[in-house]
Amino acid sequence: MNAISSIRRRDPAFPLLLGAIHDPPPTLFLRGSADAALLGRPAVALVGARACSSYGRSVTRSLARDLAAAGLVVVSGMARGIDGEAHRGALEAGGVTVAVLGCGVDRDYPAAHSELARRICDFGLVVSEYEPGVEPAPWRFPARNRIIAGLCRATVVIEARERSGALITADFALEEGREVLAVPGEITSSLSAGTNALLRLGATPVTCATDVLEVVGVEPVKQTPAASLGLVAEALYERLSDEVLTADELVRTCAIDPSQGAAALMELELAGRVTIEDGRYRASI
Amino acid sequence: MNAISSIRRRDPAFPLLLGAIHDPPPTLFLRGSADAALLGRPAVALVGARACSSYGRSVTRSLARDLAAAGLVVVSGMARGIDGEAHRGALEAGGVTVAVLGCGVDRDYPAAHSELARRICDFGLVVSEYEPGVEPAPWRFPARNRIIAGLCRATVVIEARERSGALITADFALEEGREVLAVPGEITSSLSAGTNALLRLGATPVTCATDVLEVVGVEPVKQTPAASLGLVAEALYERLSDEVLTADELVRTCAIDPSQGAAALMELELAGRVTIEDGRYRASI
Repeated sequence: MNAISSIRRRDPAFPLLLGAIHDPPPTLFLRGSADAALLGRPAVALVGARACSSYGRSVTRSLARDLAAAGLVVVSGMARGIDGEAHRGALEAGGVTVAVLGCGVDRDYPAAHSELARRICDFGLVVSEYEPGVEPAPWRFPARNRIIAGLCRATVVIEARERSGALITADFALEEGREVLAVPGEITSSLSAGTNALLRLGATPVTCATDVLEVVGVEPVKQTPAASLGLVAEALYERLSDEVLTADELVRTCAIDPSQGAAALMELELAGRVTIEDGRYRASI
Repeated sequence: MNAISSIRRRDPAFPLLLGAIHDPPPTLFLRGSADAALLGRPAVALVGARACSSYGRSVTRSLARDLAAAGLVVVSGMARGIDGEAHRGALEAGGVTVAVLGCGVDRDYPAAHSELARRICDFGLVVSEYEPGVEPAPWRFPARNRIIAGLCRATVVIEARERSGALITADFALEEGREVLAVPGEITSSLSAGTNALLRLGATPVTCATDVLEVVGVEPVKQTPAASLGLVAEALYERLSDEVLTADELVRTCAIDPSQGAAALMELELAGRVTIEDGRYRASI
């Protein structure tokens, strides 16, 4: 495990944005190879439900990838679901990510994310206001959320039920005058009830990474043009932009030969243009 | 077929809101059992894609039902997809609906909707600025859209691709200072690209009929409390609020007995709490 360091609020290296919140932590414990200066770089929080849907997972991963590629530090809480995908997406892009814990930085919580924590520490940081050894406890998570929002110029909520923890993070961000953004979702999905409610309250809708970059004032990186696709793959991709489908449904509704279809799906997968979950294909944003 | 009447713009019975637009039609031809006074009642336009998804269909149907039940006239264009569902939902609620055509009111266009046109005429109206006998033509549809928006206090766009005809209707509504609302959808769906773009431009997000009623200043009707469900049905409904699933997937992920599951799904269907399409179950709003 990386050595653990700490930084006091009075320390000149203490992150400015976090120091500016109503109730900044007196000390921040850091684990990872980066130093505290990382916490002063332009950052965005990606937060949301633990029990998220395949839609939420897919959107988080690709937003995190694009935001990290544009040079933003991606901050989240290392929880299951949206948080985990946010860290993974940033790492995939070779970017930097920060996990803020509701326990000591030496406790990999949840346990299933201990490998993820190690990867975050390679170039980024795992941070907490609690001393090493402090156990996770439910009442520490809302407090932790103020640090996530406090470190960031903007907080993006990707999927959240009503009265979800992610909405607490959004509230903290609002109170501190930071930007709050939300990803629209189907109004028949309880996992989008919280995000759609945020939109009704005036949060900025996010449809792609550029919408976030605009708000935080960071230039998007020039996209390398997407690899050109074969005709069949192009047709399947168009169909998947309309609806999430299994390979069978896709091949049937597009009326193409199943073996051609299988090859084209492989092509789309390799090009990162689709994601698969529970046997269903979804177009990537 | 009902007798066809007409009303001139100078006529005192000409609908006020429509008369107030920049370019009102000189004459409106009416087919149906209602008289022109119907066009002066508080109305809302529900518009969207012809090739819509099961999500769009389901949301349109239930919004139209609830808005009509609250006493609003539901206006749309009688096209396939969203338009058709808007009229059907209003009729289902025993409400009143108006179809505005881009051809003469004696041409049932599209032909597949001639039965729907007859049902609309039973209590509502099919209207057009074109004389009976005029054929549908592509350039007449944008012009028709200004009448849809012009008759209504608010226009709700439910599903629309980028550069869709429904966005033209929304533009007309905006130009005339009417309210524009949009239903959020998944940012990975091209069918929600237009609606999510409207949200970014400041359209009011719609998550339920009450959101629309609030904007047009009409009181929601008192909901009769939803029939109470059995334990299994309640559990399945909760699961379906998270994700659209087939009966098999549902029974498997909820770990319940398949025959119990089938009975509970029937119960949900009869209570109007789920809709089914292509074998997939979706929770109703």
